[in-house]
Amino acid sequence: MTTYIFGHQNPDTDAITSAIIMADFEHLHGNNEAKAYRLGDVAPETQYALDYFKVEAPELLSDDLTDQDVILVDHNEFQQSAETIEKATVKHVIDHHRIANFETAGPLYYRAEPVGCTATILYKMYNERGYEIKPEIAGLMISAIVSDSLLFKSPTCTEQDVNAARALASIADVDVDQYGLDMLKAGASTKDSTEAQLLNKDAKSFNIGESTVRIAQVNTVDIDEVMQRQEALENAMNKEIADENYTSFILVVTDILNSDSKILVAGADTDKIASAFNTTLDNNTAFLPGVVSRKKQIVPQVTDALS
Amino acid sequence: MTTYIFGHQNPDTDAITSAIIMADFEHLHGNNEAKAYRLGDVAPETQYALDYFKVEAPELLSDDLTDQDVILVDHNEFQQSAETIEKATVKHVIDHHRIANFETAGPLYYRAEPVGCTATILYKMYNERGYEIKPEIAGLMISAIVSDSLLFKSPTCTEQDVNAARALASIADVDVDQYGLDMLKAGASTKDSTEAQLLNKDAKSFNIGESTVRIAQVNTVDIDEVMQRQEALENAMNKEIADENYTSFILVVTDILNSDSKILVAGADTDKIASAFNTTLDNNTAFLPGVVSRKKQIVPQVTDALS
Repeated sequence: MTTYIFGHQNPDTDAITSAIIMADFEHLHGNNEAKAYRLGDVAPETQYALDYFKVEAPELLSDDLTDQDVILVDHNEFQQSAETIEKATVKHVIDHHRIANFETAGPLYYRAEPVGCTATILYKMYNERGYEIKPEIAGLMISAIVSDSLLFKSPTCTEQDVNAARALASIADVDVDQYGLDMLKAGASTKDSTEAQLLNKDAKSFNIGESTVRIAQVNTVDIDEVMQRQEALENAMNKEIADENYTSFILVVTDILNSDSKILVAGADTDKIASAFNTTLDNNTAFLPGVVSRKKQIVPQVTDALS
Repeated sequence: MTTYIFGHQNPDTDAITSAIIMADFEHLHGNNEAKAYRLGDVAPETQYALDYFKVEAPELLSDDLTDQDVILVDHNEFQQSAETIEKATVKHVIDHHRIANFETAGPLYYRAEPVGCTATILYKMYNERGYEIKPEIAGLMISAIVSDSLLFKSPTCTEQDVNAARALASIADVDVDQYGLDMLKAGASTKDSTEAQLLNKDAKSFNIGESTVRIAQVNTVDIDEVMQRQEALENAMNKEIADENYTSFILVVTDILNSDSKILVAGADTDKIASAFNTTLDNNTAFLPGVVSRKKQIVPQVTDALS
């Protein structure tokens, strides 16, 4: 019986690579039926990493998971997971996010740690069991850490993430800083994307009280280049709000070089959302200096403001 | 700032001892503000273990946990936890149960494994870090494992639980089988308890769909001794149903010597609950041969039948 392993919808580099890494871990552990899947398209940044380390992208999940064994990586909230997740048997979770809207009928393995990246936890698991980390697995771990930490600049980044990436560099045979910047830049181009594509590059839904808040993040080397399309973006956000019944939509445009963000807010509760950051909106936008982490600098603040 | 460590309401031996053990672990880890608490009375079985290994019971929790740091052991479901748990900051969970009705605002440490006992996971954590296990801590770990596994007879018991208890025997300087039986017997006397006390010895509430099902378990060496009080027990169960708005109440009377149980069911959905065990109720009761584990042989079956 297959063990389905996958990260969240709108997969980022950690979601894709952690699924591949966990499948490798399960194989080493004797579970030969473990297989990595993905819940969405491979983003350019992730494709850069896969190409660099010559690893194939996981298959797109299309199977019904009813009564199937599942391992979740890099997420747990059901609304961020596969459509049929509630009917699956979750055997194991490896994650570094808050826990919410997650429930099982029976006991399971769950390993969460408040580090910057799921791959960092996987790195520890290999070490604890003395499993060999192959060069391409090391490369994918580095890619995930660099991606989630924006090259160690995010406040979510811990000493453990940095140490893991540094220790893995010799196995993967890369210069982490040079490779990392090249990988981030490969994912930061926004020109060739439609507004709908930008909004779905790295978007997650959060159930907060009675509200469902959609929070999308776009990395860029030029915030203005994205904000020139504000009107079209707002139209696309309002369309998604109408189509998907979101309460609010927050687009976080993050400058990966200067480590700042601008938010664009649509839908209900815009004042409350602005107050979460002790600011007010100007033309539906606000500049948030030093903010780069959705998990640490956006979600808890918005959760507090809306609860 | 104190780190509050505690197990579930109506604490059993694992809930009390795991809090004490985790506090010791945190002290070894450098967190001197960690302190064990309990959410209810110490049961006779647990008192036997504490007396034997000369350890004091944790303090009864009475503080408001709003914005306090908390470590949960042996549970995660909020309705089984402290009254103000939803306002606390859960930093860490060590558990061996399903995950449900649990939510955090931020990332945390969570370690769940499908083993028979929380203390078994704690045993692994000491070993992974190379921490010394003091004799009284070893004794408490053994007590928790014996209690949760009914001396290794429960289907929840894994090889890891058995191996942990055996390895700990020399540190604690006890004969596990003799000590274990003495401890279980110390907790299996039902004569001196009122019906209300029996129902609350080891009782947990489970939210299943729209229902709240109360499932209490009583260990005994003589099922008939308990069932002679059936009418009074049913009255007490119906009173709790009315007072606490439970949908149904299942009392599981478990013969610890023969490893069987009899259930007594009150409230709504009694037919559905009987069907969970492929049986029918006779005078509101059913004999369930080989059933000793609420977690593995009662809760999933009732969850399936009521969902």
